[in-house]
Amino acid sequence: MKGGYMGSTLRIDLSKNKISEEKPEKSWAVKYVGGRGWGARKVWEEVGVNVDPLGPDNLVFFGSGPLTGLLVPSAGKMSIVSISPATGIYADSNVGGAFGAELKQAGYDAIALRGVSKKPVYIMIDDGDVELREAKEYWGAGALVTEEQLKKDIGDNNIHVLAIGPAGENLVKFACMTSDYGRNAGRTGMGAIMGSKKVKAIVVRGFKDIPIADVDRFMDIAYESYRLISENEILDIWQRQGTLQVIDWANERGVLPTKNFQETVFEQAEEIGGDKMEEVKTTSRACFACPMTCGNYCVIREGDTKVVVEGPEYETAAMLGSACGIRDLKTIIKANNLCDDLGIDTISSGNLIGLLMEAYEKGIITKDETGGIELKFGNGEAVLKMLEMIAKREGIGGIVAEGVKAVTEKWKEMKPFAMQTKGLEQSAYDTRASPGMALAYATCDVGAHHSRAWVISKDLEMRDKWTAEDRAKLVIYHQHVRPLFDCLGVCRLEWIELSIDENIYADFYTSITGIKTTLKELLERSEAIYNLTRAINVVRGISRADDYPPERVFCDPIPSGPLRGRLLQREEYDRLLDTYYRLRGWSDKGIPTKETLKRLGLKEVALELEKSRKLKRKYK
Amino acid sequence: MKGGYMGSTLRIDLSKNKISEEKPEKSWAVKYVGGRGWGARKVWEEVGVNVDPLGPDNLVFFGSGPLTGLLVPSAGKMSIVSISPATGIYADSNVGGAFGAELKQAGYDAIALRGVSKKPVYIMIDDGDVELREAKEYWGAGALVTEEQLKKDIGDNNIHVLAIGPAGENLVKFACMTSDYGRNAGRTGMGAIMGSKKVKAIVVRGFKDIPIADVDRFMDIAYESYRLISENEILDIWQRQGTLQVIDWANERGVLPTKNFQETVFEQAEEIGGDKMEEVKTTSRACFACPMTCGNYCVIREGDTKVVVEGPEYETAAMLGSACGIRDLKTIIKANNLCDDLGIDTISSGNLIGLLMEAYEKGIITKDETGGIELKFGNGEAVLKMLEMIAKREGIGGIVAEGVKAVTEKWKEMKPFAMQTKGLEQSAYDTRASPGMALAYATCDVGAHHSRAWVISKDLEMRDKWTAEDRAKLVIYHQHVRPLFDCLGVCRLEWIELSIDENIYADFYTSITGIKTTLKELLERSEAIYNLTRAINVVRGISRADDYPPERVFCDPIPSGPLRGRLLQREEYDRLLDTYYRLRGWSDKGIPTKETLKRLGLKEVALELEKSRKLKRKYK
Repeated sequence: MKGGYMGSTLRIDLSKNKISEEKPEKSWAVKYVGGRGWGARKVWEEVGVNVDPLGPDNLVFFGSGPLTGLLVPSAGKMSIVSISPATGIYADSNVGGAFGAELKQAGYDAIALRGVSKKPVYIMIDDGDVELREAKEYWGAGALVTEEQLKKDIGDNNIHVLAIGPAGENLVKFACMTSDYGRNAGRTGMGAIMGSKKVKAIVVRGFKDIPIADVDRFMDIAYESYRLISENEILDIWQRQGTLQVIDWANERGVLPTKNFQETVFEQAEEIGGDKMEEVKTTSRACFACPMTCGNYCVIREGDTKVVVEGPEYETAAMLGSACGIRDLKTIIKANNLCDDLGIDTISSGNLIGLLMEAYEKGIITKDETGGIELKFGNGEAVLKMLEMIAKREGIGGIVAEGVKAVTEKWKEMKPFAMQTKGLEQSAYDTRASPGMALAYATCDVGAHHSRAWVISKDLEMRDKWTAEDRAKLVIYHQHVRPLFDCLGVCRLEWIELSIDENIYADFYTSITGIKTTLKELLERSEAIYNLTRAINVVRGISRADDYPPERVFCDPIPSGPLRGRLLQREEYDRLLDTYYRLRGWSDKGIPTKETLKRLGLKEVALELEKSRKLKRKYK
Repeated sequence: MKGGYMGSTLRIDLSKNKISEEKPEKSWAVKYVGGRGWGARKVWEEVGVNVDPLGPDNLVFFGSGPLTGLLVPSAGKMSIVSISPATGIYADSNVGGAFGAELKQAGYDAIALRGVSKKPVYIMIDDGDVELREAKEYWGAGALVTEEQLKKDIGDNNIHVLAIGPAGENLVKFACMTSDYGRNAGRTGMGAIMGSKKVKAIVVRGFKDIPIADVDRFMDIAYESYRLISENEILDIWQRQGTLQVIDWANERGVLPTKNFQETVFEQAEEIGGDKMEEVKTTSRACFACPMTCGNYCVIREGDTKVVVEGPEYETAAMLGSACGIRDLKTIIKANNLCDDLGIDTISSGNLIGLLMEAYEKGIITKDETGGIELKFGNGEAVLKMLEMIAKREGIGGIVAEGVKAVTEKWKEMKPFAMQTKGLEQSAYDTRASPGMALAYATCDVGAHHSRAWVISKDLEMRDKWTAEDRAKLVIYHQHVRPLFDCLGVCRLEWIELSIDENIYADFYTSITGIKTTLKELLERSEAIYNLTRAINVVRGISRADDYPPERVFCDPIPSGPLRGRLLQREEYDRLLDTYYRLRGWSDKGIPTKETLKRLGLKEVALELEKSRKLKRKYK
């Protein structure tokens, strides 16, 4: 390991105010690659099965990767890993911007937090010097406001801040962490974990060099990768529209979540899509070292107030837009800004508000329960109001703040059309015509999120030509290759959208670390990590029944659009899941077999898994 | 057995043209009571597990009961028992009018048919003389036309005829048998079985006396029962409106199937309900010995043609009316008449046409597939056309004729909203707000029919006050007491609607047969019969998974009306089913245990069941 890694993890026990450094063994570090891989292993080793995710014993791990902070296309990524308060199982969430890159320049590969601080603090990491500083004056403030204020107070506009808003402080189960004015680790409630630990923010500043084993080779690869990207014809539209072009794609294909996934085509899609963004946006914005510049900066002026936001991204525009029947980009931009400052995930928020809107229109919840809000699809004011109520736990917001599990426990009638798996609100693709994408959501290790596998495009194209094996194979490949980017600490968009060959990242890895490797080897490590996160979930009670899409997918045919009449067949999905398990080397209950874990170098995990399952049988 | 029974079953082997009489043992006859009980036992003993329901080896049993044909309120009932071509499991269907009474007067308690005739025949039972007569000239004719023609040709207007129409000849899976100008054994496809055996009709005429053990006691009870009925205040509305008043009841409660069970309130319910019937009807009509006269005779004139129909009943008006969005009684009357003459069940027909209409509106089937028919809710012409196409197996009618299983096999997207259980199309109550009624449908031994248990009224009333045990208990009680009427050969309506004490029927039984019994004893026999029909189903593969309502019940909240927002919870239903099994003494897979069967005097059934299940395990 001659490069890429800074060599140590910053460990802070907040209960004891204890700050230390941990240097992992080289073989360990290499085996788990970085970021998500390291975090998963730490969680497996250090977090008890019955941990309270919002208690002192939960660990939250911030991991960069070996490519982070270097001249690699969009190598500013960092994974945050823990046990989620929303789902109670393995969770990670990824943040762009440049926090991860700066962390490495400050001398650390990762941060591991445990315990609970007695009073609100922020963590100051200043090029190797680490301090817990009182955060009383920031507590209660928005995440964006906090970032701005910290920069002012510290007197350096070039520091990077990762902060929570009121939602995180109030332990909203889908509170996020925000960095660089609107880059979020959005999903799985990482903000609530920070809130529970009384950490308002982490600030980082660094000036160290990140070592590279073979600089010449590295520069050749870097040059080549940027050249390939710059020559790509599709780059232009990404720079102009960012992910908002996906609104148009999804709407044309008939998979755009509309009115809480009832419909899949949104009449006003044009008003919230890519072309509209081009009209509205002020400028583009990039994460660290990224040539795609997919971030859109928008400024809205209303009287004296000015709303500045980076976004919305596709997921935000779909979930706070079409999924809630909101037909104008301005309202979505305002909602996006509100979410960033309050510190709540736009996907979960939009999903839940859409769910409540459907329930309201169906008479399951009444105006009495909403506190007088006319919670109908298309009511933008209601969306903005609900976001405030959620973050501040006011009225019905207090229930919604507990996430989809609590909502459907309170109003059981919502269950069939609560679009979620494993307690995580589904992100923005309708899966009724794509068994593969349904499988991708349902077998994603953190819940119904698209980050692990995104196969909907190919699946729709291949529909009748594909066997269950074809589908399951692509899902599995995605579940290894996409999280590999999270391990390496780079963005996957260049690979997905600009067709940059994934082998190039293995070459980057070799030239940076000096450890000769291939994509195949890295994918095997990613497979091991996927089995490890499954094991973390299995000991927490996850099994086959948790790998199913919500009922709507099996029940309500798509009512209009190009995929009108389509529906997922339960029997087809059963078979697909069987095939997936078989190809993964998991039992038909979805448990990784001893043989599979041994093959992947996880013998000790196999033993633990067996012990835990025996115990469960014994006390059943 | 000094009375009530005529003592023998007429057996006809149609393949061999062999006619014989069978005298069952007294203990056997008493143990299985009559009608449905006898038929179930015969099917258990004589029909192989792998029988083709439409082949020569299937048995079809026509059983009167010990009360049939006597001066007992509406004692004209007869059960037809077999293995259904629609569901492949135990089936019975009940016919009113006076055929059963006449059969006994002709000297027989029952008829058992096997084999297949080489050419179309009708069976002439003339006061003890039995003949198979050529039916070439009737083959192809409507059931009503056939009845009329047979009466003319035989030269006796007082004979009773049970006939099939073209649908039965064409083996439509839900073909019925029609008697007395519109009294039907409607459900489970008994008409197709007759068609497969090439029996166009059974004609019966008899002049024998039915013996009664204690005439004085019997006359006292008869007098008392008729007096009680005549004094009942509710009798009047039954005589005026018949079952059509239930349209108003169901609509007010919000449980009237509307547009294929999507909605539960029908805006035009008044146009097809009880008051409208009073306006339209010509006169009332009663089955044998019935003071309720719930039959409504309607005459419609259109130009030169005159449509005369007994009906529609509630189930017909709901399933061919609101369930298809049909808003005028006239169209429903025409459809009813068409069903009677074509010889198809109005419930299954209406259910399937409603299903197709929803599928058409949802884009699952197209105009190309319907042969140009605009199959939208409310299109009365389309309903009439579809009925013809089904009976004659024209175009899409050929698929629909195969029943709901085949329809959802062909268009899998319809499965979630195909309202059926065990392959039988559900009759006319929405169950989303009534877990008890959902259980009643789902555990009914012939499929989703209301005949076994009807608990919706009480269940809606008790909703939150009731436990799973309360619900399961009432369903079980109904499943014993209601089929008991089918065993005894009388109508259950006086008990249900006029609150006639069910103990009176035990007294009737004692006075007629001379065998001292109590309601409790008779209910135990009925419980044994319910376990026997379950055993017939279990050896044919039925288990827990087959005891569930259709997906819609768990997925789509009621969209409007007084029960708006209500939905059945899957977990609640799981628990309810567990409770039901436990109270029945069945395993958690829904298999009657050895102990239960022994307790009910069905030891040999327990042994057979065990053998069959072992075999299955062996060849699994």
